[in-house]
Amino acid sequence: MHVVLPDGKRLELREHANALDLAEAIGPGLAKAALGAKINGELGDLLTEIPDGAEVSILTKKNPEVIALMRHTLAHVMAQAVIAYFVEKGYSRSQVRMGVGPVIENGFYYDFDVPETLNAEDLEAIEGKMRELIAAKLPLKKYSLPFEKALERYQQIGDPYKVELIQDLGEDTVLSFYEQGGETGFTDLCRGPHVPNTGDIPKHFKLMHVAGAYWRGDEKNKMLQRIYGVAFQTAEELEQHLWMLEEAKRRDHRKLGAELDIFTLDEDVGPGLPLWLPRGAILIEEIEKLAKEMEEKGGYKRVRSPHLTKEQLFLKSGHLPYYADSMYPPMELDNTRYYMKPMNCPFHHKIFASRPKSYRDMPVRLAEYGTCYRYEDSGALMGLMRVRSMQMNDAHIYCTEEQFESEFMRVIDMYIEYFRIFGIDDYVMRLSKHSKEGLGKKYVNNPELWEKTEEMVRNAMKNGNVPFIEEEDEAAFYGPKIDVQIKSAIGREFSLATNQVDFAVPERFDLHYIDENNQRRTPLCLHRAPLSTHERLIGFLIEHFAGDFPLWLAPEQIRLVPIADRHLEHCYKLQDRFEAAGLRSEIDSRSERMNAKVRDAELYKVPYIVIVGDKEQEQDQVSFRSRKEANQNGLGAEAFIRHLKDHVVDRSLKIEPLAPAALA
Amino acid sequence: MHVVLPDGKRLELREHANALDLAEAIGPGLAKAALGAKINGELGDLLTEIPDGAEVSILTKKNPEVIALMRHTLAHVMAQAVIAYFVEKGYSRSQVRMGVGPVIENGFYYDFDVPETLNAEDLEAIEGKMRELIAAKLPLKKYSLPFEKALERYQQIGDPYKVELIQDLGEDTVLSFYEQGGETGFTDLCRGPHVPNTGDIPKHFKLMHVAGAYWRGDEKNKMLQRIYGVAFQTAEELEQHLWMLEEAKRRDHRKLGAELDIFTLDEDVGPGLPLWLPRGAILIEEIEKLAKEMEEKGGYKRVRSPHLTKEQLFLKSGHLPYYADSMYPPMELDNTRYYMKPMNCPFHHKIFASRPKSYRDMPVRLAEYGTCYRYEDSGALMGLMRVRSMQMNDAHIYCTEEQFESEFMRVIDMYIEYFRIFGIDDYVMRLSKHSKEGLGKKYVNNPELWEKTEEMVRNAMKNGNVPFIEEEDEAAFYGPKIDVQIKSAIGREFSLATNQVDFAVPERFDLHYIDENNQRRTPLCLHRAPLSTHERLIGFLIEHFAGDFPLWLAPEQIRLVPIADRHLEHCYKLQDRFEAAGLRSEIDSRSERMNAKVRDAELYKVPYIVIVGDKEQEQDQVSFRSRKEANQNGLGAEAFIRHLKDHVVDRSLKIEPLAPAALA
Repeated sequence: MHVVLPDGKRLELREHANALDLAEAIGPGLAKAALGAKINGELGDLLTEIPDGAEVSILTKKNPEVIALMRHTLAHVMAQAVIAYFVEKGYSRSQVRMGVGPVIENGFYYDFDVPETLNAEDLEAIEGKMRELIAAKLPLKKYSLPFEKALERYQQIGDPYKVELIQDLGEDTVLSFYEQGGETGFTDLCRGPHVPNTGDIPKHFKLMHVAGAYWRGDEKNKMLQRIYGVAFQTAEELEQHLWMLEEAKRRDHRKLGAELDIFTLDEDVGPGLPLWLPRGAILIEEIEKLAKEMEEKGGYKRVRSPHLTKEQLFLKSGHLPYYADSMYPPMELDNTRYYMKPMNCPFHHKIFASRPKSYRDMPVRLAEYGTCYRYEDSGALMGLMRVRSMQMNDAHIYCTEEQFESEFMRVIDMYIEYFRIFGIDDYVMRLSKHSKEGLGKKYVNNPELWEKTEEMVRNAMKNGNVPFIEEEDEAAFYGPKIDVQIKSAIGREFSLATNQVDFAVPERFDLHYIDENNQRRTPLCLHRAPLSTHERLIGFLIEHFAGDFPLWLAPEQIRLVPIADRHLEHCYKLQDRFEAAGLRSEIDSRSERMNAKVRDAELYKVPYIVIVGDKEQEQDQVSFRSRKEANQNGLGAEAFIRHLKDHVVDRSLKIEPLAPAALA
Repeated sequence: MHVVLPDGKRLELREHANALDLAEAIGPGLAKAALGAKINGELGDLLTEIPDGAEVSILTKKNPEVIALMRHTLAHVMAQAVIAYFVEKGYSRSQVRMGVGPVIENGFYYDFDVPETLNAEDLEAIEGKMRELIAAKLPLKKYSLPFEKALERYQQIGDPYKVELIQDLGEDTVLSFYEQGGETGFTDLCRGPHVPNTGDIPKHFKLMHVAGAYWRGDEKNKMLQRIYGVAFQTAEELEQHLWMLEEAKRRDHRKLGAELDIFTLDEDVGPGLPLWLPRGAILIEEIEKLAKEMEEKGGYKRVRSPHLTKEQLFLKSGHLPYYADSMYPPMELDNTRYYMKPMNCPFHHKIFASRPKSYRDMPVRLAEYGTCYRYEDSGALMGLMRVRSMQMNDAHIYCTEEQFESEFMRVIDMYIEYFRIFGIDDYVMRLSKHSKEGLGKKYVNNPELWEKTEEMVRNAMKNGNVPFIEEEDEAAFYGPKIDVQIKSAIGREFSLATNQVDFAVPERFDLHYIDENNQRRTPLCLHRAPLSTHERLIGFLIEHFAGDFPLWLAPEQIRLVPIADRHLEHCYKLQDRFEAAGLRSEIDSRSERMNAKVRDAELYKVPYIVIVGDKEQEQDQVSFRSRKEANQNGLGAEAFIRHLKDHVVDRSLKIEPLAPAALA
């Protein structure tokens, strides 16, 4: 047999050779450093037979993809450690039963059915055993067994889950096994790939926690214990990851949302129905103000529609009956069923249709921050991220086919402008397309229109020089869309915005305009929601900024702290001046000590804490402590107001410190 | 017997004397001019016996209240004319049956069961006959009959409605009749009062229209034909009234709301659920902006709450089960009933309660433009005035008892400021109080608290020098309130704002704050909605301004009319400059003639129509036609922008014309 090397050279090898044979054939240095292989473009290991004629390259620790092999082997090492742990405790091997143990993002897990409930101490002990198994540098071996032999093996051990897996594979299968540490070590039914030796596993791993997981994800089955671990090639990566997890916990919008008095959930009101406290309402209003400005510039017109409607409107739009499970149940009134709206679209279509339109009126861009109501299972609800009431940054653009590209790209440009304003640098745009299999089921059955509109979107994005990826079977029912995935400051991913083409609904609603030749034409419709919902966006922004919002967005921009009661009146005067400049401030009039007041303001993440004493009062100055720039004393009050106001008006993310001249 | 005259003098009269006897005793001039009398403070006529010792004054046509007597006699004259009309047509007297014929605001009506459906021509003929009967100067006579005789009378005529009325009065009653034109004239069962002669009726009356009316208002009974008439003492009053009716029709917010593209109702969406078109949404947003400014100045904090909630919240608030008929029916979800909110209060109470409060936090003023949903019978729905979805200018103020007076008056002052801004000069404030009879039924059963809070409101209004009237049995369930009745520019009345004290609900929700002595105290709560709902306010404003809104409120403030296509580009530039100044404009780019464009803009009641030709383009000038001030040509564009912007920022009702110097 032969293989083809990365440089295109051909190399002859013995029959049934694996990548280790190849590495040895190239040289002993490479054989020693080799950890895995890329075989015909797929990640593989050194122990697996290479198909004749395959393109193969050897991977060492310099190739980042080998971490997947390490994580996979770590799962096996963990299983071996768990068995040893319980056998040492006096249990029999057959009392330690095993599900599956795959690689996941950042690490791995394994599902166990063991006789004790695992706790943090157990994990520590198991992790210790794992480190011993790694230090022991156990070599791995791969071999195959026919169906009957494989079954017999696990029936002897007494592991019902593996037995079930093998039975499902069927009698004609030959099954592969990985063994580490010889026959007295650990063997697992596994397709691989793995590193060749447990000694190749880096020490930068950690067992994280245990969670319940139903066998095969089915709640009718037994719940197993799943141990999660993370692993990286370097200490820095592990540290960064653990920091990110800590940071994510610290920034959790549910925790910060409560601490910063942004929203609350109330048992009497109902799950998934947040109440926005005054500070949350300020965030909402600032975002709406921004959207209004952007939409006015973009030629949108605003409309308002009710939150419920007759059933027939959603029958016409096609939401009913298919979408009924995601809607609130109906109200029966005057012999008619009414539904809460799960989306604003049909109302906008009705508004478009309420007046005759000519080509001169096109495009028509209708915007509404409409609150929609959707049913989510109460188990799926989560803070502001998964809710039942959602106020959407919605708009529908009705345009001619000729206007499509420019309208579509104006929307994309608006997205990018919003990302700039919120400091979102890391985002991916995805063209979500239909799939042939879904036509007539998940997707309107009109293959030509699908091809055509997908091509229109593709061209628009290309002509606009906006990078994007494409994905099949991710479109909306009525047309392709651009979905935007953004990453927060700590790298957490959020699905936020969406920009959808709708070639189906305008016809259902008999929408039309009269063209230059006095002909009735059906417009295209774009659905867009760049700022998502208030709920999701604010949830994201809390985590993105860790509650330390940019000045323009901060619910309280300035906290006034009088040093003594005699400075209180001056604080009120300053507050009036701040208000006149459009700056939001609060006064801490409590008779606490100054330091306690400053600490409390810091807990609220107030950007500027202005301390007012005799000198400030007499000389009309402010002395501030700030989260945004270096603290300053004795700054002229007017200069301070101008300084802050400029940044608010510009919606700056960062504060430019005042030049020393301004401090005079 | 004797009577007491207005000057306190005593006058002896024969037994059973009536006011005509009195007038004659005073002098023949007065007897001739006399039309009615005031007897012990009540309106009476000359034909009714005066009780011994009564205080009596004689009324002539100089006393405006005599119009009621005239209207009442007109109803009889109309009945006489209707009988004559049908008898002349060949019907028998028994085919003309009569219900009742009372005096109403501005006029009178009478219900008939006649053999033909009445139309406008019939009314004209009947009105003609009435004028003949008036010209004939038929004297009126009053007499009584015992029950049996009265019954016999109508049984003979064959008038089942009058028979029914008499039977209901009971056998022991003596019934009074008024007869005009002698026995061959017309006689009616009637308590009066009337003028003494049909010749005393002024000619300034008019039959208006016919409407169906069920006998005794019960839809199980036969539908009668009700003829409405209006009548006044002077031609001017009649003219003014007819003008107002015409004007009201012309200003009808349903008609203008459609013509000016403000809102639409759609069968598929549902009755009483308006869709706001872009121009309506601008009105809404301008009003919200105004409210936000006023509320920020007033120290309110804004919140947001969902549109539906669990049943238990409205059970706690006491809305359920009592208010259920006015609510949308429930949705059943996760074994819980959810209701659309008919008011925002309980959500605000929850928000108040979500964080501990100290006396230093008080007062807490929570504001929300929350959309509420109420069930109104579909027959009662009317344009924007009676709807099922309503967005309310809501706020709740939680304060200590000591803060009550100042908080209450701040709200009243806000009302008065809003009235000034909208040019509402004519309004009445009414202190709506409880009634003893309603305690424990319509009203919370706590008489001391009622007395105390009513006195608090009374004192607040008195100390604030705000005139008000008092009315019993008009309070809210939970406390007294100030209701405001306003009149539009054409005198139509609207119930708009309300300011309510709530001493009951804070306890139900266990609201409290910690006072200076570390004691838990229950706050008072004020409910206020000075701008009512968007629906009602905008409905009112459309009629008040006849769609010709003040500049700041006008959805389109400027219409740009290019004279030729070559001026279009300059129009776009001007539009950008208008937009930068916060002015809303549209460009009429159609290839119509200029005059047609101007006419269309006028139909839309656009305040300024800016015509752009060569001269304007070259010299950066505008020439405008305006609904708000004299037309001008060749005004500098910048001066024009400043001129308009100043008035928008000030929310001026009237435009101050530019001084000639500014025109340069």
